[in-house]
Amino acid sequence: MTTAEQPPAPRKKTGRRPGGADTRRTVLEAARAEFAARGYEKASMRAIGRAAGVDAALLHHYFGSKDRLFMAALEFPVQPKAAVAQLLAGDRAVLGERVAEFVLTLWEQPGVLDRLMALVRAAATTEQVARLMREFVQEELVARIAAELEVEQPELRAELMFSQIVGLAMARYVIGVEPLASATRAELVPLLAPTFQGYLGGA
Amino acid sequence: MTTAEQPPAPRKKTGRRPGGADTRRTVLEAARAEFAARGYEKASMRAIGRAAGVDAALLHHYFGSKDRLFMAALEFPVQPKAAVAQLLAGDRAVLGERVAEFVLTLWEQPGVLDRLMALVRAAATTEQVARLMREFVQEELVARIAAELEVEQPELRAELMFSQIVGLAMARYVIGVEPLASATRAELVPLLAPTFQGYLGGA
Repeated sequence: MTTAEQPPAPRKKTGRRPGGADTRRTVLEAARAEFAARGYEKASMRAIGRAAGVDAALLHHYFGSKDRLFMAALEFPVQPKAAVAQLLAGDRAVLGERVAEFVLTLWEQPGVLDRLMALVRAAATTEQVARLMREFVQEELVARIAAELEVEQPELRAELMFSQIVGLAMARYVIGVEPLASATRAELVPLLAPTFQGYLGGA
Repeated sequence: MTTAEQPPAPRKKTGRRPGGADTRRTVLEAARAEFAARGYEKASMRAIGRAAGVDAALLHHYFGSKDRLFMAALEFPVQPKAAVAQLLAGDRAVLGERVAEFVLTLWEQPGVLDRLMALVRAAATTEQVARLMREFVQEELVARIAAELEVEQPELRAELMFSQIVGLAMARYVIGVEPLASATRAELVPLLAPTFQGYLGGA
């Protein structure tokens, strides 16, 4: 990855094309590092461009604005549509367990927790990010889940499930209360599964 | 309340004594306003002193340091010990419902939500505050609750209850997803009660 210390590299035959998928990935990696290190408000588009070795014009061409770059950089490591479909496709009697397993496994993937924490921190301190997150959650998660539930108040129930997931991340990783912070997935799933199952209507 | 705009007021006969309970209350109000407006890191002891009309020496005499002033300013509007004892004293078969009612009612009290949000925001962005909150939660809430539960892993279960409460505050008030943000207490209690009841061991 190109870093701020290197001079603009001569183009290698096998190197990335300007504007190609490699550049996009490099920019997103630089953006994640900058947002994680400095937070949303203090993060600088200029610093991200410098770290990625691309100029400001290209950065704006790709991502338009800081808020759009932020959401792109912290995008879910899974496609919400595919993940929701997969979770809801299986046996509904153990849906709560499947959600608990999915979330805890996801957080153990490299880099996922950093993105999640950067997002939660930014949403907690910056109304602009809170709004983006609100729209994302409502459109990409809640609406999709609610459409598949045969219960009353499906949106409210999907959002209570979301609230438990956010709170679990806060308590386990941000505040870090013990023994929750060190509890294993195997210990947590049996306790969380009935909560999710209940919110989803025992579906 | 003395504000930054007013010159130092001549002492009134019925006014507060320096160092008395009124001064303490004035300082805490000024601190809450400063922390809420500027966040933990940017909040200034000097600005709080100025707003409260007390000098820096008195401020340090009372509260010692910014982190101690922060916790004092954002202190729970209820005594944790008394609240936990009261919640656990009643019928255990409806303990989950009682917890849900208690939390949602508490957040509707004037000023409570401001304090909670300032605390969550600060904990999400400042490791020093996260540590204070971790100690507070473990010592004042989890230990007290766990001691009264006749289940395995009582601390873990108490912390999962705490995580749902934190996540509910985040989703309802910080991120503000709808319909959760506008849902009434009467709508939420029946959905939250089984979660709390389950974590507390169906106790």
